Amino acid sequence: MKILHSCPPFSLAHCSCPAAFLLGELTGHTSVGRLSMESGGGAASTPRTLPYYVAFSQLLGLTVVAMTGAWLGLYRGGIAWESALQFNVHPLCMVIGLVFLQGDALLVYRVFRNEAKRTTKVLHGVLHVFALIIALVGLVAVFDYHKKNGYADLYSLHSWCGILVFVLYFVQWIVGFSFFLFPGASFSLRSRYRPQHVFFGATIFLLSVGTALLGLKEALLFKLGADYSKFEPEGVLANTLGLLLVCFGGVVPYILTRAEWKRPSQAEEQALSMDFKTLTEGDSPSSQ
Amino acid sequence: MKILHSCPPFSLAHCSCPAAFLLGELTGHTSVGRLSMESGGGAASTPRTLPYYVAFSQLLGLTVVAMTGAWLGLYRGGIAWESALQFNVHPLCMVIGLVFLQGDALLVYRVFRNEAKRTTKVLHGVLHVFALIIALVGLVAVFDYHKKNGYADLYSLHSWCGILVFVLYFVQWIVGFSFFLFPGASFSLRSRYRPQHVFFGATIFLLSVGTALLGLKEALLFKLGADYSKFEPEGVLANTLGLLLVCFGGVVPYILTRAEWKRPSQAEEQALSMDFKTLTEGDSPSSQ
Repeated sequence: MKILHSCPPFSLAHCSCPAAFLLGELTGHTSVGRLSMESGGGAASTPRTLPYYVAFSQLLGLTVVAMTGAWLGLYRGGIAWESALQFNVHPLCMVIGLVFLQGDALLVYRVFRNEAKRTTKVLHGVLHVFALIIALVGLVAVFDYHKKNGYADLYSLHSWCGILVFVLYFVQWIVGFSFFLFPGASFSLRSRYRPQHVFFGATIFLLSVGTALLGLKEALLFKLGADYSKFEPEGVLANTLGLLLVCFGGVVPYILTRAEWKRPSQAEEQALSMDFKTLTEGDSPSSQ
Repeated sequence: MKILHSCPPFSLAHCSCPAAFLLGELTGHTSVGRLSMESGGGAASTPRTLPYYVAFSQLLGLTVVAMTGAWLGLYRGGIAWESALQFNVHPLCMVIGLVFLQGDALLVYRVFRNEAKRTTKVLHGVLHVFALIIALVGLVAVFDYHKKNGYADLYSLHSWCGILVFVLYFVQWIVGFSFFLFPGASFSLRSRYRPQHVFFGATIFLLSVGTALLGLKEALLFKLGADYSKFEPEGVLANTLGLLLVCFGGVVPYILTRAEWKRPSQAEEQALSMDFKTLTEGDSPSSQ
């Protein structure tokens, strides 16, 4: 097992932001590029069009965050914790945490293609922790706002979906940590769980995007009412934001599901896999 | 190319409903079962747990359709074309066409695992045609209702997403038909387009589910308003319907993405693939 733990410590070369990868790709200064040059090759090359798709996803994600801020600033009075503006903390935190950061956490395995697997895993887990913490602040904001104003909790479809997202996200994090970062789980067990983890990761991300759309719609209908049908500027801006959320929710799974963009197995992982295959013959995942 | 066209004509053994497959699986009378028995084996066996997941998806899908009908019947006065009830044709048609039938059209390749590829393709296309026609009736209903009542069209996020679904669905059908059913496209071109078709098929299905949730939410907020927060029976029923829609939108992709449940290549397809590989060496999909 030692070989799995022999990864280099975090450094600037392993910057946690897909945008940094893109900058590196365009200027030829990624850690991947350096690794290839320094070692005289050996690392798998980055697929030609992948950086452009990652760039597009980041542009979309950042536009969604900026547009959420613009919507709250222009039409909802901005953000504050101790006033009626406390509610506005909720959509901003949810979009940053459960949409943008969660999406980027999923992209980590496509962006960092040649780094040690364990380093990439830790980065994936850390981004999810940030996403969870920011989303928790957003959750506290809305419950606190409801409590202060005597509003009912958890009556809407948006809130039911939101609670489902939170429960699934928390369970996924705990189970994922236990299987993939905690050293106890066997190779065979990890192999069997991996497809489930990947599927539920993508599902929770898409459900988060869907829940954000429901929340946006709720906020618009409560404030605009019948004026929504008059193409009020706020309605048009929020609808555009909704479509951009849909696009971000489409581009991330597109990058994840391209077979030719999947992370290549590294020599160390292949060797380990072969060792385990020899050791655990007959203990491979069932093909039911 | 002839081998691709030598499929048997439609018969009861190729019934178009996944529910029939389940009934056959449970009673041992599917065409797959018969094929295996008659030919003394040779056809790949159905994965052990797949029928239960398909059964669950059908139960969910039918419950969603029934519950939409119940919601419209109990709380919205039922359905009619020539009255204020014309609006109610819209949600029912959309749930039947763009959710239930579209989902079942995607499942066809997992359910009919040993039938000729062309028969399964035709069934996939036919289910999508039914889905599109039913959805068109739903679309005409809402535009006609808006026109009669002088309401504005296409102002909400639900309607923007709905139009996006329709455009994508129509383009996907035309392009899919041109590549896979019309005999002109080359094997190499089909291989390159297939992953895109599969990805966009799943995306359009999920966007349809998301659009249905937005429509449900819109209908609730317009009618219930502030009473929505009082846990009115209609609100609770519609929220439950929303969660069931989410579950159906999760189970279908789960069945589609299990690697071990994918449709096995048949002997005729493998032979054809080998022939083409030999003929078109160097014309394989690029691994960009």
